[in-house]
Amino acid sequence: MHLALVGCGQLSRMLALAGKPMGFKFSFVADPAEDIRCVEGMGAVVRWQPGDSVAELYKALGQPDRVTVEKEQVDVSLLTGFQEHCQVHPNHKAFAACQHRHREKQLLDKLDIPCASYSYGQPADTHLSLPVVVKSCREGYDGKNQWILKNQHDVDAFSDKAEEENYIVEQLIPFEKEVSQVSVRGANGEVRHYPLTENTHEKGILRQSIAPAMAVSDELQSRAQDYIKRIMDELDYVGVIAMECFLVKDQLLVNELAPRVHNSGHWTQSGSVTCQFENHMRAVSGLPLGSTEIFSVTGMVNLIGTEKAPLDSLTAQSQLHWYDKEVRVGRKLGHINIVGEDHQTVLEQMRSLHGLSRLA
Amino acid sequence: MHLALVGCGQLSRMLALAGKPMGFKFSFVADPAEDIRCVEGMGAVVRWQPGDSVAELYKALGQPDRVTVEKEQVDVSLLTGFQEHCQVHPNHKAFAACQHRHREKQLLDKLDIPCASYSYGQPADTHLSLPVVVKSCREGYDGKNQWILKNQHDVDAFSDKAEEENYIVEQLIPFEKEVSQVSVRGANGEVRHYPLTENTHEKGILRQSIAPAMAVSDELQSRAQDYIKRIMDELDYVGVIAMECFLVKDQLLVNELAPRVHNSGHWTQSGSVTCQFENHMRAVSGLPLGSTEIFSVTGMVNLIGTEKAPLDSLTAQSQLHWYDKEVRVGRKLGHINIVGEDHQTVLEQMRSLHGLSRLA
Repeated sequence: MHLALVGCGQLSRMLALAGKPMGFKFSFVADPAEDIRCVEGMGAVVRWQPGDSVAELYKALGQPDRVTVEKEQVDVSLLTGFQEHCQVHPNHKAFAACQHRHREKQLLDKLDIPCASYSYGQPADTHLSLPVVVKSCREGYDGKNQWILKNQHDVDAFSDKAEEENYIVEQLIPFEKEVSQVSVRGANGEVRHYPLTENTHEKGILRQSIAPAMAVSDELQSRAQDYIKRIMDELDYVGVIAMECFLVKDQLLVNELAPRVHNSGHWTQSGSVTCQFENHMRAVSGLPLGSTEIFSVTGMVNLIGTEKAPLDSLTAQSQLHWYDKEVRVGRKLGHINIVGEDHQTVLEQMRSLHGLSRLA
Repeated sequence: MHLALVGCGQLSRMLALAGKPMGFKFSFVADPAEDIRCVEGMGAVVRWQPGDSVAELYKALGQPDRVTVEKEQVDVSLLTGFQEHCQVHPNHKAFAACQHRHREKQLLDKLDIPCASYSYGQPADTHLSLPVVVKSCREGYDGKNQWILKNQHDVDAFSDKAEEENYIVEQLIPFEKEVSQVSVRGANGEVRHYPLTENTHEKGILRQSIAPAMAVSDELQSRAQDYIKRIMDELDYVGVIAMECFLVKDQLLVNELAPRVHNSGHWTQSGSVTCQFENHMRAVSGLPLGSTEIFSVTGMVNLIGTEKAPLDSLTAQSQLHWYDKEVRVGRKLGHINIVGEDHQTVLEQMRSLHGLSRLA
């Protein structure tokens, strides 16, 4: 089985590391200027940009059996181009829906899945009361291209320098916590769910996750599974998907979909029978999915801007994943997973690692 | 951290796969004719044979920070040569002891650790009563260089074609089961133990393992840990070691030591917080050892002579490790790990995989 991965970041690296034990071969598609250190030595890397021939790319990659993708912002024409040569998972429909915030909202509305109240257009024209969050329709991740407008002055200032015709304007949600549901769907429609994960962001970047999420009822867990299953079935989705949500009292409001393995699922490398990366590989290759059962409470702390692999910070309960990327302040360079008996123990170990990051 | 691994088989492959997430770099030392497919693309491979300069080898490898070894039958002069440039774990003393059966027996005798009664010399001269097992002092693995002599005729026939001056002649043990203890010792003397594993051999090759071993008392488990700790402390051992034993009534007789990660520890990839490969990497790099706690019952079935990666045989509870070696009947080409609630369930799944092997 030869898989081509679009993207050369840490997600592709970890996908390849999870697939290699099964004897899979890999090749990678890079943007013209993309840093490819993460996947160096793991397979051929071919650079491509919109306009280039996909047929030639497919050949240069060595005619892979399957194509999959590590990032949302992929050129959909690349996927439809590949489709003429081999199976592509997730399919282009999923990317088209998830990479544009308005289409994503429309998908949720169609499936009757709750999200924050929103309008589409300029913040000056919204029916929503302030404060609101304004988001570009594209290129939103790690808190990029998002602005909080608290008062009329913010709205006016924003309007003066608005660069796009239409934004998603959302009611700012005073959420209790952020959780995410990571699930996987196989080629035959089989679905498996990891438990809801509780996430903490700082400056728009995921700082840490812990699973299972704390104080979450079985009913809420089922509801999350029901939502994500509806989404996957609707998109005829194959692979791992992540659904980020706000928890407001007993309401679960979907904030964002990510059609790929997700940072909030990295803990599965240490705390679950099958990690999200292996399950994505199994799904896109048409294999039976692996069990998503968990062993223990597991935490994940991102290493952001950390100067070198913090091997000294390892303990008996933790495991390091270092991405071999160029070090920059504010950049995700690795993560540490921690397993433990209970949330308290794991949270304490997680806190002790915060000093390793340089957020800005 | 750059580690050089001596040997290019599946153990080196799995060691490198366990070290890569931590950001480790690898290079490999190969015998002149060694098949290096297992580690292809994972780092530089440099060929070496006794007589070649170790200083030049060290340079060609890129001046690694540490050297470790995947096999028993390593040239001890290679290790002492490397020692002039960097740390070598396990040390040459451990290899000298384990790669020669008489020295291994003498080590066990010295530490007062029981093994089968034996004599050193020709089987015709032994004081032991028949049947006996005759073993060459060197190059014994997967049942190679071992002969069972049941009667005087066997002894005479053996004597006629004996090629060595001295053999280890052992009382044939009517054992109830074969178990192994896999443990790890850190550079600071810290020791961690995986539970006793129960092994089934066929035609001298390990067919399958299950852990924890069935119907083993806590006292017996402690005894195994005590034995292996004495051995590791005596050898000032750093890394993973395996001790294969016969269980005879309530007696634990040590059969063989392997100064390396071991086939009977492959199940730890699926069933333990930290697998033996990661723990070996952590030990030889001077990092804290990872927890050896287990999650579940785990079984391992070797894929011997299997024609291609048996992806179709995967289930939700199992994981495949395929070594990318040249396929040959009787050769270990991969393994499948199975996790489950109880021994019965796991054993049933293991049995269903036996047909995948071609033993001879």
